[in-house]
Amino acid sequence: MAPYVAVCGSGDATTREEAWAEEVGRLIADAGAVLVCGGLGGVMDAAARGCEAGGGLSIGILPGERRDPASPHLTVSIPTGLGEARNPLVVRAADAVIAIGGEFGTLSEISLALKAGTPVVGLHTWELAKEGSIVHAIFETDTPQEAVRAALDAIT
Amino acid sequence: MAPYVAVCGSGDATTREEAWAEEVGRLIADAGAVLVCGGLGGVMDAAARGCEAGGGLSIGILPGERRDPASPHLTVSIPTGLGEARNPLVVRAADAVIAIGGEFGTLSEISLALKAGTPVVGLHTWELAKEGSIVHAIFETDTPQEAVRAALDAIT
Amino acid sequence: MAPYVAVCGSGDATTREEAWAEEVGRLIADAGAVLVCGGLGGVMDAAARGCEAGGGLSIGILPGERRDPASPHLTVSIPTGLGEARNPLVVRAADAVIAIGGEFGTLSEISLALKAGTPVVGLHTWELAKEGSIVHAIFETDTPQEAVRAALDAIT
Amino acid sequence: MAPYVAVCGSGDATTREEAWAEEVGRLIADAGAVLVCGGLGGVMDAAARGCEAGGGLSIGILPGERRDPASPHLTVSIPTGLGEARNPLVVRAADAVIAIGGEFGTLSEISLALKAGTPVVGLHTWELAKEGSIVHAIFETDTPQEAVRAALDAIT
Repeated sequence: MAPYVAVCGSGDATTREEAWAEEVGRLIADAGAVLVCGGLGGVMDAAARGCEAGGGLSIGILPGERRDPASPHLTVSIPTGLGEARNPLVVRAADAVIAIGGEFGTLSEISLALKAGTPVVGLHTWELAKEGSIVHAIFETDTPQEAVRAALDAIT
Repeated sequence: MAPYVAVCGSGDATTREEAWAEEVGRLIADAGAVLVCGGLGGVMDAAARGCEAGGGLSIGILPGERRDPASPHLTVSIPTGLGEARNPLVVRAADAVIAIGGEFGTLSEISLALKAGTPVVGLHTWELAKEGSIVHAIFETDTPQEAVRAALDAIT
Repeated sequence: MAPYVAVCGSGDATTREEAWAEEVGRLIADAGAVLVCGGLGGVMDAAARGCEAGGGLSIGILPGERRDPASPHLTVSIPTGLGEARNPLVVRAADAVIAIGGEFGTLSEISLALKAGTPVVGLHTWELAKEGSIVHAIFETDTPQEAVRAALDAIT
Repeated sequence: MAPYVAVCGSGDATTREEAWAEEVGRLIADAGAVLVCGGLGGVMDAAARGCEAGGGLSIGILPGERRDPASPHLTVSIPTGLGEARNPLVVRAADAVIAIGGEFGTLSEISLALKAGTPVVGLHTWELAKEGSIVHAIFETDTPQEAVRAALDAIT
């Protein structure tokens, strides 16, 4: 059974984040893994585009009831009508999560994954601390190659 | 954009229902549509098998948190951990629903689709009435060919 | 622990259905049970009004993200933002379901309850059949008194 | 309409966190607000206990399908069967969120609230940063009094 890797990040991402997401998507495809994402723009669209270029399969789990806003690069899109309550589903569909930058929606996916014991790999994403002490729960990486390798290693 | 057709029915189906589901799955693939189902056995597995034989794409939206119980014939499987609360998602992911026989879970998918205004085609499935009068809301058919044609016609 | 009884029916109900719902709500309150409903108008609002008149507790589980459309007669209201995907939650919150008339949304709640093994009592609601044979899964009643008694008996 | 305040924190909390939660629950009741929580032990149970002592209303939105694990101090409990996918519902039911300490589940509720624009008040809870810079999105407080006042002020 192919591993499923979620790629999470902002729908309104920086150029650097989108470049990383596209490369992450391509590497997921190269590895024969399935890409899961929130199905919209920014990091999600870039990851789907990279996955498509690599000949891979990608799934977008959309917040709205309509399929229209889905990235055209997805293999399949799933409108849910759940709004941000679809975030737990992005996480549950995945065997590992790669977070690229991201805003509060991404942080919710990171924390739901950590709660579920699903490995989380970060590319310049959120940093967590409690009472002044850093909480090392996200595996931090610096390149798409490191991120995808860490995610796949964590699954196997 | 390819149409998405959900195939709903019992996980513990009759031989006749499974034969219909397999043919429905093959015809959905032939039409270039995407098959959506609940991802488990019986009608769901048979539909995925037919879709695979026809070279089509299929999505299973699973009730549990694990991917294991998924039909091996699905292109992609999505564990949700929502139990029967995943039924609304099967319906929302689809542009039309084909119900084959089925028990109360199938009836919930039929009614959620009718509530949403999504066309529902039946193959020997539930019959609905109120105050002694039949409610004609399901488009009833007798063969897989009629069912898939009716579903695709209803979408276009 | 008090029993929880869901009252399901149309947001656009007949005068007779609303009168029944109000009486059902009052009887639920009299029995010391908690009323659960979808939180909007019609049958839901009438049931909440009856429950309030009887000094009982009622919970409305709303489809939208906002609390405004909630019946003013509810003790507490819970906006979910799930749309009709909140119907499984109305059912799960209840130990028994009373369906009064109703449209397709009510039918989805009836079928989700039957799937879960939760007792369903009907007051002139949907009638179910397969292959021409009536399926006797709903306990049919003719008055609010019978309906509430049947629901409470089914729980104990 | 009374304001609804969610209290989030660990099911396995410290003595100090439980004492804070109990006082927060009591102050929510004193203010005539409704308490929302995840319905289980630790911070959730303590907050419900305080709310009960103050004569207030509290709602527990439970992850499982059964009502049994609910805190006995809740006014009403709502089993959802959604697992951690109930976290978005705790947030949506609330007009403001108070986070007391907490683990990854609490962090998911904080981030979902921030994403939705719902005010979040913290009592020694998570600290957030990106690229080495602290993100000031949680209103930090040091006492239950400050926390409840800040939550109610943010709503009005």
